[in-house]
Amino acid sequence: MGKSEALPSRAKAQRGTLAKAPTGISGLDEITLGGLPRGRPTLICGAAGCGKTLFAMEFLLRGAEQHGETGVFMAFEETEQDLSQNVRSLGFDLDKLIADGKIAVDHVHIEPAEIHETGEYDLEGLFLRLGMAIDSVGAKRVVLDTLEALFGGFTNQALLRAELRRLFRWLKDKGVTAIITGERGEGSLTRQGLEEYVSDCVILLDHRATEQVSTRRLRIVKYRGSTHGTNEYPFLIDENGIHVLPLTSLMLNHTASSERRLSP
Amino acid sequence: MGKSEALPSRAKAQRGTLAKAPTGISGLDEITLGGLPRGRPTLICGAAGCGKTLFAMEFLLRGAEQHGETGVFMAFEETEQDLSQNVRSLGFDLDKLIADGKIAVDHVHIEPAEIHETGEYDLEGLFLRLGMAIDSVGAKRVVLDTLEALFGGFTNQALLRAELRRLFRWLKDKGVTAIITGERGEGSLTRQGLEEYVSDCVILLDHRATEQVSTRRLRIVKYRGSTHGTNEYPFLIDENGIHVLPLTSLMLNHTASSERRLSP
Amino acid sequence: MGKSEALPSRAKAQRGTLAKAPTGISGLDEITLGGLPRGRPTLICGAAGCGKTLFAMEFLLRGAEQHGETGVFMAFEETEQDLSQNVRSLGFDLDKLIADGKIAVDHVHIEPAEIHETGEYDLEGLFLRLGMAIDSVGAKRVVLDTLEALFGGFTNQALLRAELRRLFRWLKDKGVTAIITGERGEGSLTRQGLEEYVSDCVILLDHRATEQVSTRRLRIVKYRGSTHGTNEYPFLIDENGIHVLPLTSLMLNHTASSERRLSP
Amino acid sequence: MGKSEALPSRAKAQRGTLAKAPTGISGLDEITLGGLPRGRPTLICGAAGCGKTLFAMEFLLRGAEQHGETGVFMAFEETEQDLSQNVRSLGFDLDKLIADGKIAVDHVHIEPAEIHETGEYDLEGLFLRLGMAIDSVGAKRVVLDTLEALFGGFTNQALLRAELRRLFRWLKDKGVTAIITGERGEGSLTRQGLEEYVSDCVILLDHRATEQVSTRRLRIVKYRGSTHGTNEYPFLIDENGIHVLPLTSLMLNHTASSERRLSP
Amino acid sequence: MGKSEALPSRAKAQRGTLAKAPTGISGLDEITLGGLPRGRPTLICGAAGCGKTLFAMEFLLRGAEQHGETGVFMAFEETEQDLSQNVRSLGFDLDKLIADGKIAVDHVHIEPAEIHETGEYDLEGLFLRLGMAIDSVGAKRVVLDTLEALFGGFTNQALLRAELRRLFRWLKDKGVTAIITGERGEGSLTRQGLEEYVSDCVILLDHRATEQVSTRRLRIVKYRGSTHGTNEYPFLIDENGIHVLPLTSLMLNHTASSERRLSP
Amino acid sequence: MGKSEALPSRAKAQRGTLAKAPTGISGLDEITLGGLPRGRPTLICGAAGCGKTLFAMEFLLRGAEQHGETGVFMAFEETEQDLSQNVRSLGFDLDKLIADGKIAVDHVHIEPAEIHETGEYDLEGLFLRLGMAIDSVGAKRVVLDTLEALFGGFTNQALLRAELRRLFRWLKDKGVTAIITGERGEGSLTRQGLEEYVSDCVILLDHRATEQVSTRRLRIVKYRGSTHGTNEYPFLIDENGIHVLPLTSLMLNHTASSERRLSP
Repeated sequence: MGKSEALPSRAKAQRGTLAKAPTGISGLDEITLGGLPRGRPTLICGAAGCGKTLFAMEFLLRGAEQHGETGVFMAFEETEQDLSQNVRSLGFDLDKLIADGKIAVDHVHIEPAEIHETGEYDLEGLFLRLGMAIDSVGAKRVVLDTLEALFGGFTNQALLRAELRRLFRWLKDKGVTAIITGERGEGSLTRQGLEEYVSDCVILLDHRATEQVSTRRLRIVKYRGSTHGTNEYPFLIDENGIHVLPLTSLMLNHTASSERRLSP
Repeated sequence: MGKSEALPSRAKAQRGTLAKAPTGISGLDEITLGGLPRGRPTLICGAAGCGKTLFAMEFLLRGAEQHGETGVFMAFEETEQDLSQNVRSLGFDLDKLIADGKIAVDHVHIEPAEIHETGEYDLEGLFLRLGMAIDSVGAKRVVLDTLEALFGGFTNQALLRAELRRLFRWLKDKGVTAIITGERGEGSLTRQGLEEYVSDCVILLDHRATEQVSTRRLRIVKYRGSTHGTNEYPFLIDENGIHVLPLTSLMLNHTASSERRLSP
Repeated sequence: MGKSEALPSRAKAQRGTLAKAPTGISGLDEITLGGLPRGRPTLICGAAGCGKTLFAMEFLLRGAEQHGETGVFMAFEETEQDLSQNVRSLGFDLDKLIADGKIAVDHVHIEPAEIHETGEYDLEGLFLRLGMAIDSVGAKRVVLDTLEALFGGFTNQALLRAELRRLFRWLKDKGVTAIITGERGEGSLTRQGLEEYVSDCVILLDHRATEQVSTRRLRIVKYRGSTHGTNEYPFLIDENGIHVLPLTSLMLNHTASSERRLSP
Repeated sequence: MGKSEALPSRAKAQRGTLAKAPTGISGLDEITLGGLPRGRPTLICGAAGCGKTLFAMEFLLRGAEQHGETGVFMAFEETEQDLSQNVRSLGFDLDKLIADGKIAVDHVHIEPAEIHETGEYDLEGLFLRLGMAIDSVGAKRVVLDTLEALFGGFTNQALLRAELRRLFRWLKDKGVTAIITGERGEGSLTRQGLEEYVSDCVILLDHRATEQVSTRRLRIVKYRGSTHGTNEYPFLIDENGIHVLPLTSLMLNHTASSERRLSP
Repeated sequence: MGKSEALPSRAKAQRGTLAKAPTGISGLDEITLGGLPRGRPTLICGAAGCGKTLFAMEFLLRGAEQHGETGVFMAFEETEQDLSQNVRSLGFDLDKLIADGKIAVDHVHIEPAEIHETGEYDLEGLFLRLGMAIDSVGAKRVVLDTLEALFGGFTNQALLRAELRRLFRWLKDKGVTAIITGERGEGSLTRQGLEEYVSDCVILLDHRATEQVSTRRLRIVKYRGSTHGTNEYPFLIDENGIHVLPLTSLMLNHTASSERRLSP
Repeated sequence: MGKSEALPSRAKAQRGTLAKAPTGISGLDEITLGGLPRGRPTLICGAAGCGKTLFAMEFLLRGAEQHGETGVFMAFEETEQDLSQNVRSLGFDLDKLIADGKIAVDHVHIEPAEIHETGEYDLEGLFLRLGMAIDSVGAKRVVLDTLEALFGGFTNQALLRAELRRLFRWLKDKGVTAIITGERGEGSLTRQGLEEYVSDCVILLDHRATEQVSTRRLRIVKYRGSTHGTNEYPFLIDENGIHVLPLTSLMLNHTASSERRLSP
């Protein structure tokens, strides 16, 4: 194999690295070489009980507390009260963060009646509402939990793809670093099997019992425009939140320079 | 891996633990560190013959006898007489508990005729009826057996999700600790494959014959806002009801402190 | 694990055991600790050639000859003449039992024309006809062979469930011990995958060739309100009918006391 | 296990064995203890290239030549000329047997136009035509090749079942020993997955390449009212037709007495 | 096992062997004992990249050059120019063969518009056009590449079967030796899963990477009216075309006499 | 096996090799013996995160910089700004190449509204627009990223096939060397399972984690009219782009002469 030559124009070009937003999640920022893609949406997918909502919430809470970035959590399943109660076991005082104007939680209640007609949800209202929540705290980070609440009723693949692109584009235009959670499908990363293609960054969480013992694993499936660790990394959840284990992050340091990606 | 730092605001926050309702089921309260989430619904799922109804019934009976919490059993498959007869082999006198006003059994008979039109079941009537049953005994615990009786005919995923959320929200608003049983789907925890995402707590029961010998196993798939054992635990059913085996619960004590969860 | 305490009210309650109807099938009454649930329907399911019809017929014939219980065989696939001819190889004289008023065989011919419209079969006519057959011999035992003849055309899951419940309820109200045969589905016990949830007792028959050698196995998947052996038991078919092998029934005696069930 | 007692009425009953029609196929009549059920239809199923048509044709040809039973071959795929040409390599002179009035071949051409409407085929015309062919040679044996030509377009399971029953009943009423060929479905014996339940006798042919070497196997899946070998038997096809290998037929002699069946 | 007796009428019958058309493909004519069935259509099926079109083209080219049989290639995917260009790497001058009137290539362009209505393609126009191409060179060999171009839009199984039969019958009536290529389906030989049942001869090509190394294999799945090798044969593609490897063809010589087939 | 003879006309024919466009991707041009088929479209398929877009982009960038061939990138998912940002990490200055008129990027925004009606996308507008982009830079290379954006909504297989052919034909008529990216389907190379049959050249990219360690592999599934390496080749992505590993390319040199292909 002849080594690819460095090109003249390449020498001139500035090797920019994609701007990143640190998650503060222990171990993850090492694997991603800095965090999630700043100003772009990231898809966190996995089965029930894998830790998607916890991941998204920790990203938001640490953003507000450690990195001075306010955030919006748009919840379709849980109420502000539910979330606050769940977060308390990790020692976070969500109510105070809300009162301090660092986090805004918006529980969107989708009426069965508005779904009955076509099974499709119109995004315009969501954009309006989400825009107001973002403005209310000057949010830099946004979580949408979960994608299925919006798109679960779509049956036309082409339309779903177009709407996903529209949502992702809207978030990019807003300049926020976003996390969108998605449920696992049968034999595919996501329920509809195409959300991962439209996304710039995809992280898969897994929680599986093998021979009666359960383990949690995290894998960065895709990260457009950035180098990243590509293996499966075990992670734990304890009283300080999620910890992606350093074992493989040591190995990663040795191989990181040889794995760069442009766009999948 | 740098250990995540404890945050200033976290130090101040009171580490509240989610309130729990003890099941009285041997071994289970150890694994769940106290029982099921109080005031929230829990989904018990598994295939035919796995012990779902027995689990739900024992939770209710022990609640009434051991913890002074009255309960309602809303049955769609079995009559009060069937249930009473089945429970007798475990030494429980369901008829007496009903006569004493500690348990109310409501057998709901769904007429094929009312399903014929859309395959969808309107929840309003159920809420009215369940509300009355709850009030009649001042119930703190509720069992709905089974989810499929209500939602088996739904074909629109978005609508089903909205209705599930409505049911779970109604139960939360009532303040009851609830168990809802659900049938196993092919390749997914539940028949429709989304019930487990909407639930706060999900326990999977399994009864499988491997090389001619059958074993029963229990796994806590999800428990929002609480630490819990995450392995598969073998269990037995004998004349005192369900026994989750202590073998792994000993192991659990050693690892419990390192596994905390906020919300999946 | 702390052993569950015996409750005060439990001490008072009479530990009734569910009434059972002996099948007379060698080995089976040991595994079931007495036979099938008396006055309740049992589902016998399995693939083509597994021995479902033979099982049901032997239950009826031995009921009439050994236990003085008359029976009705409602056949949708085979005629009285077919059944009589098939039974002769086992040494049973079905014609004589019919002439003596101990067994009634009713061959129901479902016209394609009456199915054409909705694919659904109305149960009212069946109840009327079955009721008359039961009365004609004062039947204590009933066989319906096969469930699919009645429900094969249903496509609405909620409606099918409601109709199954109606059939099972009607049989219970009649007070007969019933066997209903059901065909195996792909990846599930039954064709529609929900018949086993609605049933009180489910027995699975299996006939499979592994490395060119075939074996037959029987498993009690579910038995509401009763203890039962839970393993897979090999069985043979010879000139005296079905024999469930004693090998594991010996093992069962040792473990029977530690496995009690209320309702699955 | 207590051995099932012989019953009084059983002692009196004549142990009739089901009448059988010898196939003349080497080895098969030993495994079936005499041949196919006389006066009943048998389903021969398997994938493309398994030898279904050859099996059916040899049954007919040997019936005419060795057992003095005339036969009708109703073909939906191949013409009389095709069949005659194919049969010649086995040394059979089909044209002469037709000229001698021992075999009648009827090639039924189903026009696409008559299918277009409902995808369902009306059996009345077939009965009329088949009846005439049977009468023309006084046929005792009938082959229908293949079931899918008649029922491939059915989508309503209940209707298909009713029509299959009607066809099988018509053949029984005619008193002919019939073979009906059926194509293999995915994960089931037959394409629709219910043909095997409606049949009295089912034989599965298999032709599969394992590690580059192909083997042919035959298995009697079901045989109502008769004892039969239940293993998988290898078979060959040579210039004298099908040979089921004697290896296991020796083993069968030893175990035959312990495997009797009534009706599956 | 008693050896099947030779029958009186068989002794008289002339053991005709089915007429065959040599392919000229190295190794294949040995395995098929002479080539493809003359005057009948053969189905060549396999996944993308397995070599179907190459197989069909080599059959045609060698027919014209080695066996003096002119041929028609009816292409639905590639133009005459594409085919000529692809064939040149094997050293064939397709343009000259066309100019010499030995081969006719007809590229059929199916307009999306004519499919839009029913998804079904009317064969009459094809027959007319193919008939003219056959007459133009007096073709003895015909290739249709590919079946899916004609039948990809059919959803009614019964209608598809009838149309396939009509096409195959038309080709037989024309007296040409034909190859029809077909795409592989999931879990079945062909896309619709019934093309192989309607065909007289079926050859499966396979190209699969196992542990990073790819191998090509060929298997004769079905050959009505003729003996044939039944194993999987490895094959290569080099500058002289396809070579089925002689390794197993040696083994075949030893076993050929014991494997004769009539019709599958 | 008799070696196929060289034919008289073959000796005369010029052994033309298909014209190829070098990709400049390290290792790939060796495996393909020169690059992708010049003037024909190539399908690059694989799951999310496999590197499809990177592959296509590197082909275009190296074409412009190393081989003096201008190119058009038609993007349906990402904007020009996104692509430019992603490419920067590899040291390419896309903006400059665009300013210099060497590359044109056209981001096509498909409105949900225009899909709503039939789910089908009309190609005429695309051809017009793509033609203008090609003319604007005099493009020799074209990338369409991704096929699903155009065809995701098609449900009629015959129509999809016809439209794919139309697109591929249009690209061939334009004389450009094209790459079209396609998403992976379940159990098939592509989402619809027929794109690979219509394509002249198909390359599969794979990125899979086995026992926690991820590896990337590339396989040339199909290459009409050319010899090519047929194994699975590991590849890396580093700061100079994609590197297909030379390990197997050494092996390839030894076997290349024995593997020639015409058309699959």
